[in-house]
Amino acid sequence: MKLWQKNTKTENAVDKFTVGQDRELDVHLAAADILGSLAHTQMLESIGLLTKAELVQIQEELKSIFKEVEKGDFKIDSDVEDVHSQIEFLLTQRIGEAGKKIHSGRSRNDQVLVDLKLFFRSEIEHIANNTNLLFNQLINLSEKHKAILIPGYTHLQIAMPSSFGLWFGAYAESLIDDLEMMLAAWKVCNKNPLGSAAGYGSSFPLNRTLTTQLLGFDTLNYNVVYAQMGRGKTERVLAQGMSSIAATLAKFSMDVCLYMNQNFGFLSFPDELTTGSSIMPHKKNPDVFELIRSRCNKIQALPNEIAMMTVNLPSGYHRDLQLLKENLFPAFESLNECLIMCNHMLENIIIKNNIIDDTKYDYLFSVEVVNNEVLKGVPFREAYKNIGMSIENGTFKPLREVNHTHEGSIGNLCNEQIKDQFNKVYSSFNFNKVNQALKELVS
Amino acid sequence: MKLWQKNTKTENAVDKFTVGQDRELDVHLAAADILGSLAHTQMLESIGLLTKAELVQIQEELKSIFKEVEKGDFKIDSDVEDVHSQIEFLLTQRIGEAGKKIHSGRSRNDQVLVDLKLFFRSEIEHIANNTNLLFNQLINLSEKHKAILIPGYTHLQIAMPSSFGLWFGAYAESLIDDLEMMLAAWKVCNKNPLGSAAGYGSSFPLNRTLTTQLLGFDTLNYNVVYAQMGRGKTERVLAQGMSSIAATLAKFSMDVCLYMNQNFGFLSFPDELTTGSSIMPHKKNPDVFELIRSRCNKIQALPNEIAMMTVNLPSGYHRDLQLLKENLFPAFESLNECLIMCNHMLENIIIKNNIIDDTKYDYLFSVEVVNNEVLKGVPFREAYKNIGMSIENGTFKPLREVNHTHEGSIGNLCNEQIKDQFNKVYSSFNFNKVNQALKELVS
Amino acid sequence: MKLWQKNTKTENAVDKFTVGQDRELDVHLAAADILGSLAHTQMLESIGLLTKAELVQIQEELKSIFKEVEKGDFKIDSDVEDVHSQIEFLLTQRIGEAGKKIHSGRSRNDQVLVDLKLFFRSEIEHIANNTNLLFNQLINLSEKHKAILIPGYTHLQIAMPSSFGLWFGAYAESLIDDLEMMLAAWKVCNKNPLGSAAGYGSSFPLNRTLTTQLLGFDTLNYNVVYAQMGRGKTERVLAQGMSSIAATLAKFSMDVCLYMNQNFGFLSFPDELTTGSSIMPHKKNPDVFELIRSRCNKIQALPNEIAMMTVNLPSGYHRDLQLLKENLFPAFESLNECLIMCNHMLENIIIKNNIIDDTKYDYLFSVEVVNNEVLKGVPFREAYKNIGMSIENGTFKPLREVNHTHEGSIGNLCNEQIKDQFNKVYSSFNFNKVNQALKELVS
Amino acid sequence: MKLWQKNTKTENAVDKFTVGQDRELDVHLAAADILGSLAHTQMLESIGLLTKAELVQIQEELKSIFKEVEKGDFKIDSDVEDVHSQIEFLLTQRIGEAGKKIHSGRSRNDQVLVDLKLFFRSEIEHIANNTNLLFNQLINLSEKHKAILIPGYTHLQIAMPSSFGLWFGAYAESLIDDLEMMLAAWKVCNKNPLGSAAGYGSSFPLNRTLTTQLLGFDTLNYNVVYAQMGRGKTERVLAQGMSSIAATLAKFSMDVCLYMNQNFGFLSFPDELTTGSSIMPHKKNPDVFELIRSRCNKIQALPNEIAMMTVNLPSGYHRDLQLLKENLFPAFESLNECLIMCNHMLENIIIKNNIIDDTKYDYLFSVEVVNNEVLKGVPFREAYKNIGMSIENGTFKPLREVNHTHEGSIGNLCNEQIKDQFNKVYSSFNFNKVNQALKELVS
Repeated sequence: MKLWQKNTKTENAVDKFTVGQDRELDVHLAAADILGSLAHTQMLESIGLLTKAELVQIQEELKSIFKEVEKGDFKIDSDVEDVHSQIEFLLTQRIGEAGKKIHSGRSRNDQVLVDLKLFFRSEIEHIANNTNLLFNQLINLSEKHKAILIPGYTHLQIAMPSSFGLWFGAYAESLIDDLEMMLAAWKVCNKNPLGSAAGYGSSFPLNRTLTTQLLGFDTLNYNVVYAQMGRGKTERVLAQGMSSIAATLAKFSMDVCLYMNQNFGFLSFPDELTTGSSIMPHKKNPDVFELIRSRCNKIQALPNEIAMMTVNLPSGYHRDLQLLKENLFPAFESLNECLIMCNHMLENIIIKNNIIDDTKYDYLFSVEVVNNEVLKGVPFREAYKNIGMSIENGTFKPLREVNHTHEGSIGNLCNEQIKDQFNKVYSSFNFNKVNQALKELVS
Repeated sequence: MKLWQKNTKTENAVDKFTVGQDRELDVHLAAADILGSLAHTQMLESIGLLTKAELVQIQEELKSIFKEVEKGDFKIDSDVEDVHSQIEFLLTQRIGEAGKKIHSGRSRNDQVLVDLKLFFRSEIEHIANNTNLLFNQLINLSEKHKAILIPGYTHLQIAMPSSFGLWFGAYAESLIDDLEMMLAAWKVCNKNPLGSAAGYGSSFPLNRTLTTQLLGFDTLNYNVVYAQMGRGKTERVLAQGMSSIAATLAKFSMDVCLYMNQNFGFLSFPDELTTGSSIMPHKKNPDVFELIRSRCNKIQALPNEIAMMTVNLPSGYHRDLQLLKENLFPAFESLNECLIMCNHMLENIIIKNNIIDDTKYDYLFSVEVVNNEVLKGVPFREAYKNIGMSIENGTFKPLREVNHTHEGSIGNLCNEQIKDQFNKVYSSFNFNKVNQALKELVS
Repeated sequence: MKLWQKNTKTENAVDKFTVGQDRELDVHLAAADILGSLAHTQMLESIGLLTKAELVQIQEELKSIFKEVEKGDFKIDSDVEDVHSQIEFLLTQRIGEAGKKIHSGRSRNDQVLVDLKLFFRSEIEHIANNTNLLFNQLINLSEKHKAILIPGYTHLQIAMPSSFGLWFGAYAESLIDDLEMMLAAWKVCNKNPLGSAAGYGSSFPLNRTLTTQLLGFDTLNYNVVYAQMGRGKTERVLAQGMSSIAATLAKFSMDVCLYMNQNFGFLSFPDELTTGSSIMPHKKNPDVFELIRSRCNKIQALPNEIAMMTVNLPSGYHRDLQLLKENLFPAFESLNECLIMCNHMLENIIIKNNIIDDTKYDYLFSVEVVNNEVLKGVPFREAYKNIGMSIENGTFKPLREVNHTHEGSIGNLCNEQIKDQFNKVYSSFNFNKVNQALKELVS
Repeated sequence: MKLWQKNTKTENAVDKFTVGQDRELDVHLAAADILGSLAHTQMLESIGLLTKAELVQIQEELKSIFKEVEKGDFKIDSDVEDVHSQIEFLLTQRIGEAGKKIHSGRSRNDQVLVDLKLFFRSEIEHIANNTNLLFNQLINLSEKHKAILIPGYTHLQIAMPSSFGLWFGAYAESLIDDLEMMLAAWKVCNKNPLGSAAGYGSSFPLNRTLTTQLLGFDTLNYNVVYAQMGRGKTERVLAQGMSSIAATLAKFSMDVCLYMNQNFGFLSFPDELTTGSSIMPHKKNPDVFELIRSRCNKIQALPNEIAMMTVNLPSGYHRDLQLLKENLFPAFESLNECLIMCNHMLENIIIKNNIIDDTKYDYLFSVEVVNNEVLKGVPFREAYKNIGMSIENGTFKPLREVNHTHEGSIGNLCNEQIKDQFNKVYSSFNFNKVNQALKELVS
């Protein structure tokens, strides 16, 4: 069954090729599709394109299908093209003629546009919430281990004293800027494209402001040509937001793998969270972090893939856009799993003590010695030269004390200020407002 | 001359290879470097690491070098490694010992971090301003040509009526979401990394809050390890923001090239804005838009390049990061030139009339006819089938009228609302606050 | 069941996260895994690590499992980690102790390396064969329609006469260079990594030359550290080869979509190979080519994804590499489907006649007129200026004749030479040699 | 001066924007442009479009300009658009009317196509030669240090014994596969596009086979539409070839930086080849390898950039292609410098002894112990379990002996076979044939 079918039947091979993975992927859009139809039909009734009685009948049945979706009972039949057709088909099967009227004033183009935006909003919320949990875990570990020094490296060379407080806290703070990028993606998603039809609007006197309110959108994608142009762009922007969180997780995982390596030996995990080797009985491998790194680097490549698939397409819908779902939809689940697994691993992390006592870390303290000279009045460049010479001559004596007091340093992590910054960004999403609107729509 | 030199001289070949293009690229950072030093030295005096007299002497001379930079008189000598060394060298040459003291409590690492953030802020401002000009040009053209219909395409097939009002307006609205991404990049840039030294802080009692205020930053990159981690990340985030504007310009250019093609023939430009062919005397080519498209697609590849160059580097500074300047710095100029040239071309665009009268565009109006049936009470799916049959039978009669009234449609472009949205995002940058702070610093 | 398990059980969540999609994706490697084991065990017997009797028993059972794989009866049990474990498990279950001995002298690392290379060889063969079919289709169409002129465009502006002969033939010739890249990938794949164990070799006196011959490899990855390093690299090189074919298909699809657009109107397809619109009854959309374009552009992004996931990993195995299968494996199927569908569509393509007679194509012939002047002795630059003036004055008279005779021009397509070139590259793969070796191994 | 100019002057701003960096970048093409003209004019004379006398005059002057180019005396004047115009301009200035005739039968499109292919051939030769030098350096170091054991890692965990012999040799062997990819790129480059004019051929009876021979090309890009389509594609394919070498260098650099890190401490370099820190007087940084890594990762992103700039462009020339030179041309120099610097650093590398004696490396030898059990008849899986238990119980006793004898293992590096493989690929380029042809052309 195809919504657009006239008399000619499409060939099976073409059908299979064009439907692709839609029957599986579109299941993710079912809830959003129903929400969109609930709003669209309320609006149709308000402009006289549905009777009050038809609306009641339609809303009731859509809400009942919504419950089936929530229970996981929804699937797309093998002879149905996509989620939109399946839901319209179920509706018409159950309530007859009225079901056929819900497509007035819209096209599958704006229908999938609004479905995607609703689905993306919900996925952004999951990601933001899991980011929040990881952020707090990192802050807690930063506070808990703030007294434990580790070497800080530059050029991968031993440089200056650092600490687990700094290390965990740095990745927490990194998530603030990542969430800022996600917030921009959220703002791009949180605009209503419904009513743009096939990208050129409709001759019906649609009330797009009404559907905007009903669906909890901040505002509209006003221009209907732009609303259509948002397909592909929204996906790219969202992937960029995700890539920022992914970059933080991947870098953290690289550090963990390095620090767990026996030459560093700064940290470890319980046996049940690591894996072994089929030929080396002594191995204890950080597979979880290698896979977080790999998954997240894959997500870092996603914005580029989306750009490559949309570059140089003139304005107006192209079927190319359908395939953007294939790697983007699984990326939501993958990123969420990475955030959750990272958090879970950190609950069980084993931190080594006394790392810094090893004599190979003596030179870590050379800057402290230079600075002490400076505080005694020696110009910096001279103090630097003197200590440099003493290191070359082997007469250097380290000072194993670190008295850093300024904002964000070992002795003054400012984790409270970092928490305030994170919470400020997180609260800007205002998920409650959106969720409240959707709750009203389905209840 | 190298700041870090002891007794061993680096080999010339190594020197040349490691300095790379820094002497040319770092000139872009000279103003920012001086601003950073002006703030840093005020702070050093406030914590007793410079005397009042030294501070006066240093500030006076730095401001004088700043004036030379503004006049375009600044260059990095061929035996000097980078901009930081050149400015410290000039200072020491002119005021002696006091000049050597300005490097206390900082490293080249946080020095270049703050330079980059200051430079990026200034480049974001240029881009935002040029985006503003183009936005207004597009809105004006949308209003001016709103009555002229053009075919709207889907799948590159003739679909439904569109208009120049919709077309220009769509790209204007696109710039709003692009600017939203730039605003996120701006927020990431607008945090002070100064005081993080080599990424592990300093034993001096630095007052980072003071330099944050003096440099007009919104807040600090608190955690010093994170401040360092911002290198590479800030560049990537900024490139993502730029790529969004670039994507809009590239897509617009593709449309222009297509619409200027003689098979479409919707628009043209005066001869002096187009180019010819060395063997075809009749040619009139849209080279400017082909080059905007190409430059902008190159910018679309930039975030990926930055990711590729930074992926899987453990935390802490790596020399790899130096090379991020090479493609990013020219991209600022390139994007600004694209915005300016696009604007300039649009000032001279020639719009064709009566495009839609061609009989090949008859079917554009089929949806209108379907909808008229629906308004008479025929269920949509049936009306659709009827008109479809009349098209197949050759009995279809177009209605050459378009009465679209809903928000964002041909008859109701909502350009005022679109302008309001743009201005809301644009004003969130609050460039004045930042510029005021910097003005006080150098005056 | 895990090959490497000692006493500690890995946590379920870790297990699920680390296994990922391996149970589904590894099924593709089952045949290759058995082939590898058939060769490995023959070799083990030759160096005395298996008895003759054990070998007979093992080979018999492996061949029987191979038949199950060929029949599609093979799956990986939900409590088994991967394909290697499943096959070893089946073997041990059926023949007892001898089954446990097949893992001597190898690691899962070189086992999966050889599996991948065998699988890749087989996929390259499918792609090369489908490319061969499409190549011949394009050549046939080039010959069939060589007399039909179409406009040739530069800068998307009408430029000079072209023909369907040239257009189809160009894409045929493009596949030669693409196959050259695939051939390089084939050569990289066609080297034996087996015997490298975990990337550092084995203390057993393995005979790697023997397994190289048995598996039909051209030569060995000699150095065991390099053999391991081939993981990720082989995938990237192969994706690059695929991206070249994909780029040709995508560009061709762009042309098809443009030429099918009503403003061009050069070609079409039967209704049963196109699709319609849910709101526009007149639509006939080239979805198949839009999806070929989109799938192929996705494949064009694949080498970058692989690079992003492997960049900056130090030498030695990392678990990251496991995830490279996720997008690469489906890409084989996708590219093959694109080649097949493209071929299928071309079997049914409808070519328009008399395209060139439209007066808007008059200027196509201006270069012919210039060249006629030149043949009469006028210097090129002057002839060019004269004709240019006549076009500007509206006095230009086209000559609707095209007499191109040189190699590769409208009148002399050189399709025979192009076929020779293609066949030369195609025959360099020498698939027969490889297939013969594998046939002997399983028979 | 513009070749295509009629009466209208292009606006200055348009001029500046469209010329871009061509005046600088095109200088790289000057020698190639003259070679192309030398061949083209010989051919023109052979078909009667130039007189013998004109040919003599033209050839003489072109060869004289060629010498100026070789001396570095060639530049493009600020009022001249590109290298083609500059050379034609010089020629006409010096020999008058005959100079104007050299453009007969070609367009700037095929002129730049052939220039690029000639230039790329020459750059590929430089890269192949520098790769050859580095290959031999790595093989020499592999042989020299083959007795020195180092730990081998998997998952960055201590795994099994490796050696400097294996490590250096692995990267040597990696260059073989990289060169295989370059060879494919070379084959794509080594086909003659000259005679395709603007992509649609010429009405002149050109002899393209003659120019193919004169320029030393293997064969032609026959189809003229395909010859034009090679622009962008050739660049992408070449960048893919370069990216393969770059990936090997980048990975090697990552290893070097890690092994030079004090926690590993496997190798070092003399002070004059490393750099220091502006605040840490003890630092000795591997900047050269960090920059090789970064430059090479940038080159790894290049094929994607080229794809992004060419994706979805319909067939026929577009001005977009001009910009591909901007990052590709400098990449040749950059990659060559990386190969040379890597080679230079390796001449001076300092290898540590006795690395493996540290007790933290005891477990490296566990597989050896397992295998010894197996050789005594214990099934592998049982031996593995036993040793695993002894490690967990702390009763494991390492065997500090490595007796690997199979092909490619520690005790049998097979460097001779690896050299043979490299030389086989290297000699397939057959640079001599090409150089001989060009030498004849200019002499």
